Amino acid sequence: MLNFEYCNPVNIVFGKGQIAKLSKLVPEGVKILVTYGGGSIKKNGVYDQVMQALEGRDVLEFGGIEPNPRYETCMKAVEIVKREKVGFLLAVGGGSVLDGTKFIASAALFEGEEPWDILTIGAEVKDAVPIGAIMTLPATGSEMNGHAVISRNSTGEKLAFWSQKVFPRFAILDPTTTMSLPERQVANGIVDTFVHVCEQYMTYPADTPIQDREAEGALLTLIEEGPKVFIDPTNYNVRANLMWAATVGLNGWMGQGCPQDWATHAIGHEITAFTGTDHGRTLALVMPALWKHEREAKRAKLLQYAQRVWGIQGGDPEKNIDLAIEKTVEFFKSVKIDASKRAYGLTDEICDKIVNVFNTRGVRLGERGAISGKEVGEILKLCAE
Amino acid sequence: MLNFEYCNPVNIVFGKGQIAKLSKLVPEGVKILVTYGGGSIKKNGVYDQVMQALEGRDVLEFGGIEPNPRYETCMKAVEIVKREKVGFLLAVGGGSVLDGTKFIASAALFEGEEPWDILTIGAEVKDAVPIGAIMTLPATGSEMNGHAVISRNSTGEKLAFWSQKVFPRFAILDPTTTMSLPERQVANGIVDTFVHVCEQYMTYPADTPIQDREAEGALLTLIEEGPKVFIDPTNYNVRANLMWAATVGLNGWMGQGCPQDWATHAIGHEITAFTGTDHGRTLALVMPALWKHEREAKRAKLLQYAQRVWGIQGGDPEKNIDLAIEKTVEFFKSVKIDASKRAYGLTDEICDKIVNVFNTRGVRLGERGAISGKEVGEILKLCAE
Repeated sequence: MLNFEYCNPVNIVFGKGQIAKLSKLVPEGVKILVTYGGGSIKKNGVYDQVMQALEGRDVLEFGGIEPNPRYETCMKAVEIVKREKVGFLLAVGGGSVLDGTKFIASAALFEGEEPWDILTIGAEVKDAVPIGAIMTLPATGSEMNGHAVISRNSTGEKLAFWSQKVFPRFAILDPTTTMSLPERQVANGIVDTFVHVCEQYMTYPADTPIQDREAEGALLTLIEEGPKVFIDPTNYNVRANLMWAATVGLNGWMGQGCPQDWATHAIGHEITAFTGTDHGRTLALVMPALWKHEREAKRAKLLQYAQRVWGIQGGDPEKNIDLAIEKTVEFFKSVKIDASKRAYGLTDEICDKIVNVFNTRGVRLGERGAISGKEVGEILKLCAE
Repeated sequence: MLNFEYCNPVNIVFGKGQIAKLSKLVPEGVKILVTYGGGSIKKNGVYDQVMQALEGRDVLEFGGIEPNPRYETCMKAVEIVKREKVGFLLAVGGGSVLDGTKFIASAALFEGEEPWDILTIGAEVKDAVPIGAIMTLPATGSEMNGHAVISRNSTGEKLAFWSQKVFPRFAILDPTTTMSLPERQVANGIVDTFVHVCEQYMTYPADTPIQDREAEGALLTLIEEGPKVFIDPTNYNVRANLMWAATVGLNGWMGQGCPQDWATHAIGHEITAFTGTDHGRTLALVMPALWKHEREAKRAKLLQYAQRVWGIQGGDPEKNIDLAIEKTVEFFKSVKIDASKRAYGLTDEICDKIVNVFNTRGVRLGERGAISGKEVGEILKLCAE
């Protein structure tokens, strides 16, 4: 097991009817800015529940945070936070709303000239406006971590930052709020969660049996519960388990002490930046190709995954690995994501551009830093046509 | 899944050489009281590492916190904390030292007349002196929770309390510090951890597949790693996995949203109070008897446990349950705990006294509150002779 430090102070408030607790969770005596996205919360009743719970408080609103939240949009909210002296940000929606809100919280108190530096050169987030979250889309795990991913229209960049300062003070997770989600977003969330877990797991063995089994347990749950949600979308327990899987999948817990490989996300972000493809779908496209490319480096864990997650063992190990990768793709299809380069407009020309991005940045991805621009190109070639 | 709230702000600092980080973790400008037990930390080098890391700080010491820490001992430390205006408590040792320190932290700032009320009538802990922990004995999980168990000499009571205020600010877990532990304590810690996990797991199915698999993963790890530590006591990875299991086993995470049954601990505490038997050993004695007694109520989970933890499936379900309970007892023996009433001096007379305690208190134990004094008596009868 590798050395680690882990501190996750988020107060998770999980279950039916928990939004009513908001009035106790949001601090008294401060101006609150409620942030949200395209307005689905006004259709599904969540907005009304929030406003009811905050009755009598000094509440402002900022809607319109888009999927892949944009710097340009967030900076408009930063102006409001500064002008109105907002003391608490309440993000209501999915991971994009919360990620955007984390950036707003950091940028509003940023001491430097240009808050974009937080994303490009890792400028330190010394302080941030406190955040609370009501999650209505299980996917990113943003409700229980300090991560955020922000895109910038003017440069076409999609970049991530992390800070202990932007962990939400609380996150309310009511599975019933997810029942009206479009199938497309549900599918994206399931695959996003599955891949988050795999990126903390599918590396090389580091003698971490507890963490491995936590990861395998989350994967098995997604495989069992994922397809059910499309057949029985108002099944509370299915929704609850998928929502909990998303939180467990990226609160960092299962990956402590483990080598990790976030190459799938890094490559996926670029596909989204160049083609506009949904985040979850890019992951379903890239991860199987990454595993094929990194087959030797990941051999022992691929075999463990084949055995413990898919029950594939005995016989030829090579075939077992092939079958486990096939099963993974089949699972993505079972939750209605049939990923291909053609479907997502990922042309050879765009692939070349993506390779260039990695060459220019000079980063080395993967658990051993073995993936540079050249390997990204090879992985993109291995993606389903 | 049941509704829940979970907030665990402990900063876990895990791994080799992490005690050196102490100087950054302990706040500046306050008087520090280092608490410890019988002095083993002076023999294994931990005391020296701590004092080196705290060089130049205003440090006091309070040693002699015993296993099953006593109210009478803790109150002596409370006097020091008050008199010397101590601003930070650093517990160095096992769960008993940390539990005692949690009570010291609470009692020192207690506003009522009698801090024992925290344990007997649940008097609120409104504030507590901040605590840091260096754990040298993996067992209680106290390093990442707000629980403490305190005994009182004058009354023979052993009682528990919980407060969000006594979660340690940080817990340093260096597996190398556990390598010099006596076998007896190692064995106790493994069984204690195993039983903590079971008490969050062995109830009735509540559609909590992620939590179930987290629990099963911890149990499998204890079964695999536990016996190794006696053969190869300086194996770092074995020590690391056992240490992490103890934290995972009782930081509350795997039990969120699940029904729970803490009857084994409740009964075990009384056996310790009356016979002085080590805590872990009382659990090894009681849990198999409890499972036999509650066989019908726990049937579905016993069968799941048989299958997923012991690979027992097919054939007669009754035999599978019997075998799973047998395997559990064999596992305890494999880590050198061969529990019996005779070995622990648990006579019929003492059993009657314990039943009386539960009758007098009138509590109802178990996931459905089905266990009162009468059932405790029946469970004690089913314990290995």
